[in-house]
Amino acid sequence: MTLTVAFDLNRWMAAQLDAVERALDSWVSVDASADLDHHAPADLMAAMRYAVLDGGKRLRPLLVLAAFEAVSAGPGVPPAPRLEEVDEAARRGVALDSAAPEQAALRAACAVELIHAYSLVHDDMPCMDNDVLRRGKATVHVQFGEASALLAGDALQALAFELLTPELTVMSAQQQAHLCRLLSRAAGCTGMAGGQAIDLASVGLQLSEAQLQQMHRLKTGALLSASVMMGAACANIHSCATGALQEYGAAIGLAFQVVDDILDVTADSATLGKTAGKDAHSEKPTYVSLMGLNQASAFAKELLNQALAALKRSGLADVRALEALAFMVVQRSH
Amino acid sequence: MTLTVAFDLNRWMAAQLDAVERALDSWVSVDASADLDHHAPADLMAAMRYAVLDGGKRLRPLLVLAAFEAVSAGPGVPPAPRLEEVDEAARRGVALDSAAPEQAALRAACAVELIHAYSLVHDDMPCMDNDVLRRGKATVHVQFGEASALLAGDALQALAFELLTPELTVMSAQQQAHLCRLLSRAAGCTGMAGGQAIDLASVGLQLSEAQLQQMHRLKTGALLSASVMMGAACANIHSCATGALQEYGAAIGLAFQVVDDILDVTADSATLGKTAGKDAHSEKPTYVSLMGLNQASAFAKELLNQALAALKRSGLADVRALEALAFMVVQRSH
Repeated sequence: MTLTVAFDLNRWMAAQLDAVERALDSWVSVDASADLDHHAPADLMAAMRYAVLDGGKRLRPLLVLAAFEAVSAGPGVPPAPRLEEVDEAARRGVALDSAAPEQAALRAACAVELIHAYSLVHDDMPCMDNDVLRRGKATVHVQFGEASALLAGDALQALAFELLTPELTVMSAQQQAHLCRLLSRAAGCTGMAGGQAIDLASVGLQLSEAQLQQMHRLKTGALLSASVMMGAACANIHSCATGALQEYGAAIGLAFQVVDDILDVTADSATLGKTAGKDAHSEKPTYVSLMGLNQASAFAKELLNQALAALKRSGLADVRALEALAFMVVQRSH
Repeated sequence: MTLTVAFDLNRWMAAQLDAVERALDSWVSVDASADLDHHAPADLMAAMRYAVLDGGKRLRPLLVLAAFEAVSAGPGVPPAPRLEEVDEAARRGVALDSAAPEQAALRAACAVELIHAYSLVHDDMPCMDNDVLRRGKATVHVQFGEASALLAGDALQALAFELLTPELTVMSAQQQAHLCRLLSRAAGCTGMAGGQAIDLASVGLQLSEAQLQQMHRLKTGALLSASVMMGAACANIHSCATGALQEYGAAIGLAFQVVDDILDVTADSATLGKTAGKDAHSEKPTYVSLMGLNQASAFAKELLNQALAALKRSGLADVRALEALAFMVVQRSH
């Protein structure tokens, strides 16, 4: 008798999100620095926690963890009922083996989220987008002042690299170095920060589709792609799926931005948790302003299909979470 | 006949500074990103280069390189006439062996300087110190605007970790991971950024000497100490001198700040290359306001002696560059 376990995305998501929230809560804290000579100044930590906790879709951590699971399952290996296995182990009171790679993936997931969170804090500041609402809350500089927002962002970036370089033995030096390499390149001048600089310089300009795509590939795509590659790297398995995962990451990275542009026009601020209609108001070039709403929607679906096709080509045994996340990126309402 | 080669600090400094300036010029550049999919946006890179090149004492890179040389020379090994050896090799047209550790040290030296440079860019912004003059030039936000200054600082921090994680084989994964570990901790909420947060919170307050010391140990000391430890790590030699080097780093880190406070009162803006009298004006607690000018000077000398004593205890064969830098920190005029 063959037992097929259907993939329960909601259950998978709930378990991963729970792990991510608990990990962020414990790592972005004064307690986490208790083994050092000095605790992190409490005011700074309060602003950092405000920026990171209680909010966000956690798309990047989910991508890290989904890619980690996909590569861990290996090519040709039938999908393991991971959650059931965990439940079973918990019921029997035994510890699962090989917790180290999962710890590494959780650290990578949180590190990417810290980079994302810091970029939002700085992006919202008066000298950038001057926004007052984020994730349904007052932005960090509104709540804590501009100087604290600036420092909290800076400290979150450093903390991301701290998370990736523990003295514990949960990650090999090779993994640590490789993860720092992927993350620093995705965050810096040839990645996210570079994309934001292009964004800044292109307000009020008419960009071509190629230019708009280049901007978003850096601004949003680089970190989303890095999430996928970092998750794969945590599996500590030499996988032939790297190329396909890169295509998947690039496609959903761009799709994310196209949908962002669509939602900026179609959704309201309450649903978005941030100010709607901002891009049109600030004369920023968007996919909607470039190709119109209908064509932008069609483009998002085309990118979804590209992402799904890349997963099929990957030869990975269990890509269900990655598939589900691709759908989530395109079909989200906020 | 014994030939004693006197240590020529000026010659050593000139050679190291030349190497650091050339390395920064080549690594903080659009060309350096040419092997990636996309070049760094030119405007952002211009602001980053402005922040990093043509200025600064390069104290942190010099500490990295001096500590590297001290540990490389080993315990009990007579000081090698390194420069003469290089000259001789150049004259004979041969490449020196073991260039890899020296490349690693140069990367570490530049990475620390990028963190320092980014902190100055953000520190000078209107929401922080609101300063218009730095290293004798207009500050980055005055020259490029606030948004670009914010992004340039962010990108410089990421670039520091990029420099420490090359795909080249000049550094082992162990070294890369260890250097990222040291640098991220020195830069983040339990290091430099944490110190700046304390600084921010203590304007107009009367701090005790212990509180002032805690603030500076994080704000300036952490990165100066990390410079020493990162240089030592690049030597790839297990050295018993770690404890002594830590004491040395802590002593000169604090001495640096005490002298900074003294110079803020005694020097003029032209000599400093930044606005003098700023601390007193902004009611920041300083060593001069706490203990008076004479006692602050005596304290700086006491810290110098602590640093020199730590070097003596280290058992390292050649600490002449580290000694000279300790003197430089305390006797500098700007």
